[in-house]
Amino acid sequence: MYDIDNMAPASPYGLRWPGRPHNFMLLSQWADFLSLDYTRHPFDTDRLAPTLHTNDEVVWEMQRLHVRVLTSLLAGRRHAMLMDFVTHENKGDAAITAGQVALLKRLNVTIVFSCSTYLCDDGILKNAREISKGYNSTSLIILLQGGGNLVGYSSIDFTREKILNLFPDFPTLLFSQSIWLHKGNQAHLNKCREIYSHRENLTIFLRDRQSLGLAQKHFPGTKLMLMPDMAFGLGRVPRTMPPTLDIVWLKRRDLETSWYKVPEIPTNLSVYVGDWKAWWTNKGKTPMETSFLMTFNGLSFLQRGRVVITDRLHGHILSVLLGIPHVLIDNPPYFKLSSFRRTWTAGLSNTVLVTTGEEALDQAQKLLKKYNNYLPNVVRP
Amino acid sequence: MYDIDNMAPASPYGLRWPGRPHNFMLLSQWADFLSLDYTRHPFDTDRLAPTLHTNDEVVWEMQRLHVRVLTSLLAGRRHAMLMDFVTHENKGDAAITAGQVALLKRLNVTIVFSCSTYLCDDGILKNAREISKGYNSTSLIILLQGGGNLVGYSSIDFTREKILNLFPDFPTLLFSQSIWLHKGNQAHLNKCREIYSHRENLTIFLRDRQSLGLAQKHFPGTKLMLMPDMAFGLGRVPRTMPPTLDIVWLKRRDLETSWYKVPEIPTNLSVYVGDWKAWWTNKGKTPMETSFLMTFNGLSFLQRGRVVITDRLHGHILSVLLGIPHVLIDNPPYFKLSSFRRTWTAGLSNTVLVTTGEEALDQAQKLLKKYNNYLPNVVRP
Repeated sequence: MYDIDNMAPASPYGLRWPGRPHNFMLLSQWADFLSLDYTRHPFDTDRLAPTLHTNDEVVWEMQRLHVRVLTSLLAGRRHAMLMDFVTHENKGDAAITAGQVALLKRLNVTIVFSCSTYLCDDGILKNAREISKGYNSTSLIILLQGGGNLVGYSSIDFTREKILNLFPDFPTLLFSQSIWLHKGNQAHLNKCREIYSHRENLTIFLRDRQSLGLAQKHFPGTKLMLMPDMAFGLGRVPRTMPPTLDIVWLKRRDLETSWYKVPEIPTNLSVYVGDWKAWWTNKGKTPMETSFLMTFNGLSFLQRGRVVITDRLHGHILSVLLGIPHVLIDNPPYFKLSSFRRTWTAGLSNTVLVTTGEEALDQAQKLLKKYNNYLPNVVRP
Repeated sequence: MYDIDNMAPASPYGLRWPGRPHNFMLLSQWADFLSLDYTRHPFDTDRLAPTLHTNDEVVWEMQRLHVRVLTSLLAGRRHAMLMDFVTHENKGDAAITAGQVALLKRLNVTIVFSCSTYLCDDGILKNAREISKGYNSTSLIILLQGGGNLVGYSSIDFTREKILNLFPDFPTLLFSQSIWLHKGNQAHLNKCREIYSHRENLTIFLRDRQSLGLAQKHFPGTKLMLMPDMAFGLGRVPRTMPPTLDIVWLKRRDLETSWYKVPEIPTNLSVYVGDWKAWWTNKGKTPMETSFLMTFNGLSFLQRGRVVITDRLHGHILSVLLGIPHVLIDNPPYFKLSSFRRTWTAGLSNTVLVTTGEEALDQAQKLLKKYNNYLPNVVRP
């Protein structure tokens, strides 16, 4: 069995997965928690989080939870179908795919079928159904892509409904999701109640407490667990390139934004403000290769800055993987970022949560000052 | 003074510059060579090369030569103009720019003026001339971009001629170049004799022995030195992403190729064949930022493979920086790659030089086998 608690894992993809931390206090004080069977305590998974102060500790714990819980849910199954993985330019979703694939490889699970977003149509799912006949419920698990699209983006819920109805005999896991609830989707929420409630074979990971609360309220009779975002499966990532800017400001340009204002930038600072959806990636030969290329293009996007400001959840998560000090801007009234941070990364000392653009710029300048001697210089001119 | 021989350098850009190797034999047997003043032995610089067996050792020695010699040539000057740096999609030229900038930063030299290719026109050079009036020949050096375009690409020689004539009072250094001589440029060679001969203030670095020989023959009365390619200034680069292919075959598609054939690829191998000029890079806010982004996009391009095959010189050099085992295909009758390898990297055990596509594929498969346990797995499907 794979023993994540006692050794640094050998990474099959060359990824840098941190081993058990050299933090005696942490490990001894939390021994009881570390040995829990989390499937029996599905809402208690975040207890260690506030005491994790370094990037290595955070990534280690998120991965420990992933490996432990998935090992338990797999119960010896060694085959999986990965549905609806992502190949579009929102680098966060691609990073989730890459993290999921790394986790499965780590657990020696073979992906016997996969389809990427927009390609999981009826024809290809029928094909998957045929393939599934070579397995049974003790050898195959159906996995649905994680993300932030549960309830919030209706078409994906309908794709998932189709899949759930197509494989009723197989255990199915919806990887870590957050729920985006807004005025416009109350009617769709009722539809989601039908889709996701009373599914005995389904487990849903929720990646923050707020989303977990909504799921508990609306999806009775289905197994729910509080579980970190799947992108943590990538492990720690070294900076490969020198920064070319003081600050990269990754600013989302869609309906989930809180429409905060970017203040005037002081002339002594070099700052890039933009969304990584417009940061183009070369395509691979397969959708899976494309997904990995997008992930690492997202990591390059962020590395251009000595520090990062972001209102994107994966601006936060990838900056944690990279060890880049950063400022998070919350998005009231949805609170997607603050709920995630409160749940998993509140102990990290090199990240700050704010609510306005002015505060963000102010705090980023403080991070630049505080970490000046630890951050690589900017390439000029 | 910056002591590269006795300590691992603190890298201002966060680049990974290897320190003095822990190789007692190497250091003691070569003590005399290590302490040479290379400006007095300008053609003996490669003596250590055949004994450098690891990627760290190669990069350390190439950087040691750069720092030592440039320190000597600068003779206390702390200001430089960097002319004709590169922002086009040939990632090798961009990597040279990035290496040059890293070297200058390391030596505490301020770039007081720079212009990128196609932008070094008469107007902007006049501007540079004005700026140069604030300095004198003991405080400012003029630096010309390295590459493989000496004699081989006439328009760049004419740009350099303009610059040489515009700054006759300042010491000028043409960073490491190779000379591409072919049937079609005999007439231009005569023109180059006029441009580059008898220039007392000019030093030209040649990056391989064959090019040095041509320069010695055709450019009398000008200081010539055998010096490694400037891209080594980047240092060692860790792989950041898992490979998605067994082999990346970086194949040049221009007149410098030897027009070798790519053999049929066995079905059990995943291979990408293409030129990185068609691998698109997002543009930065400044030409310099774009140049760095292209460099690191080139590193990503190569990292997709567990091993690399290439007939591009910087496919070789960047693979050395990345520590990726690779196969070089020579390009007779020009022998650009074999001459470079013989000069600088012949001691490296994880690279192989061949002359045909069949041999290349065969040797790449041998590298995959030999290093199987050391290379990260390929992400599939």
